[in-house]
Amino acid sequence: MTKKLDITKFLHGTELLKRGFAKMQEGGVIMDVVNAEQAHVAEESGAVAVMALERVPADIRANGGVARMSHPDMIKEIIETTSIPVMAKARIGHEGEARVLETLGVDMIDESEVLTPADPFFHIDKNKFDVPFVCGCTNLPEAVRRIVEGAAMIRTKGEAGTGNIVSAIEHARLVKNEIEALSIANKGEIELAVDKILEGYQKLQEKSEFAINPKNTPFGNLDHLHNEVSIILDEVISKKRLPVVTFSAGGIATPADAALLMQHGMDGVFVGSGIFKSANPEIMAEAIVLATHHYEDAGIVAKASSMMEDAMPGLEIENLKTKYQDRGY
Amino acid sequence: MTKKLDITKFLHGTELLKRGFAKMQEGGVIMDVVNAEQAHVAEESGAVAVMALERVPADIRANGGVARMSHPDMIKEIIETTSIPVMAKARIGHEGEARVLETLGVDMIDESEVLTPADPFFHIDKNKFDVPFVCGCTNLPEAVRRIVEGAAMIRTKGEAGTGNIVSAIEHARLVKNEIEALSIANKGEIELAVDKILEGYQKLQEKSEFAINPKNTPFGNLDHLHNEVSIILDEVISKKRLPVVTFSAGGIATPADAALLMQHGMDGVFVGSGIFKSANPEIMAEAIVLATHHYEDAGIVAKASSMMEDAMPGLEIENLKTKYQDRGY
Repeated sequence: MTKKLDITKFLHGTELLKRGFAKMQEGGVIMDVVNAEQAHVAEESGAVAVMALERVPADIRANGGVARMSHPDMIKEIIETTSIPVMAKARIGHEGEARVLETLGVDMIDESEVLTPADPFFHIDKNKFDVPFVCGCTNLPEAVRRIVEGAAMIRTKGEAGTGNIVSAIEHARLVKNEIEALSIANKGEIELAVDKILEGYQKLQEKSEFAINPKNTPFGNLDHLHNEVSIILDEVISKKRLPVVTFSAGGIATPADAALLMQHGMDGVFVGSGIFKSANPEIMAEAIVLATHHYEDAGIVAKASSMMEDAMPGLEIENLKTKYQDRGY
Repeated sequence: MTKKLDITKFLHGTELLKRGFAKMQEGGVIMDVVNAEQAHVAEESGAVAVMALERVPADIRANGGVARMSHPDMIKEIIETTSIPVMAKARIGHEGEARVLETLGVDMIDESEVLTPADPFFHIDKNKFDVPFVCGCTNLPEAVRRIVEGAAMIRTKGEAGTGNIVSAIEHARLVKNEIEALSIANKGEIELAVDKILEGYQKLQEKSEFAINPKNTPFGNLDHLHNEVSIILDEVISKKRLPVVTFSAGGIATPADAALLMQHGMDGVFVGSGIFKSANPEIMAEAIVLATHHYEDAGIVAKASSMMEDAMPGLEIENLKTKYQDRGY
């Protein structure tokens, strides 16, 4: 038997491999699960990955308080009993939690606004990790900052735990619109866009009592970041899209919701509370996978809509006490 | 038998000895305890010291009202039954309580914003005491004022009793950022920083109806303080850190939280409600000590995270009625 060369060994932790892993999820549905049994339901329905967390966003929202990384034992149990990739959430800026998740062997970390943020100024330096990260965004500047920091995948934030699709559409439209704006911008306008994006790294300095400000951030100094942001914007302009796989999340509750986001050009969808807070999770999981795969075929989306029993109850965005989408910038 | 010279006798109450005591806590965990039994749990887990107080911050917050120095009998009982150093809290500016604690023989006094402040303008003149003090800060100006006043140890305030790490990270980042800013500042900018720091001593004058103001404070007049602040800033700039041991406090609730703060360059952590408000305090205490000692080893932090049962329930900062971090300046 000839020895097989495992090229992934050499590529381990590279941007190529991290983004490549994200690309494998394309066109699919990633489902929130809180135990091995739910992970099994997700896998059977055709989910491309599961997101292990202690409570689905609807419950985190209902319970209030501080939401943290899930218990390692729960994550390990899901990893051991599931054959599709397992993702898990770390708090924004909580490198301690992210290192634990990496050690546990999760396939991707979601630095998520659904958990209570740990750092009010900065996200995790994801370039320092071998494991790929997905991060949320509400607009293009946020997405670019996350990619600069090493995110291998972006999901528009929407508003998790609401079963309300309106924020997901808002964020999808904003990102698309801002990419269009860049593609017709002149050099001066692009330079202004770079500056706007860099403002997101200067919130710490605004808080300081001192007038003098260092140019450092956890991701390098502002000159370095200026350069990095410019490179990513060039890529955005030439590709007319984000340079990483871009999913939708936050509020998807029906097969038609999933199809709508795919029609908006998203590469796939995260469904959180939408499945396991519905009347019949097994059927809802299958119906959403079906509608996501065949979003262009209204007949199949209609069939998927017929399959489902009651969707999760939903919340109006304007009545929320806490908007998760405002966490991180 | 030759007579042994006890050098500590000559050094008793000196800055050298007070800071030296603080230095002995370095790399460790200091735990809030409300009775001798809890102090025993803390000692067994490997805590470097205990903080004796009547109620953990989460209970002080829940009960509301005025929080004061603990009853001397409780403090004496803990001192008598514990072999690691015992600290206790006095109200901000309450020299009366601090003198009682010194007399009781505590090893260090925490002039703490978790208790209800006694003085709205000034902290205790800690230089007048033989016992060392630890004080909280949210930024570098606050830290420098406390060191000028004689604090032998600083802890970033965070937000006690919340199980929410975000304020602890905010304060750690602010102190670090302001030290960086100073290290690139020119003479004029450093002079402005000194003035900014001295503003914290002029709040009393702002309250007066008279336009003329005396230059005196409990810590000497403003010219003297200007000189003292300048000396400390020189030390900060040359060492690129505070000249005293700097711990983190306020919100640490999991082993990963403790590891995160250590990764941020803190010298150790105070854990208040995080241990005795968790599901299994014995195990949480051990797990947090383990993660603090091995914060750079993600495998051990993961193991510590696996050990723990439910962490304390947490509170969101934006929903708090009282923010302890705003007490004192």
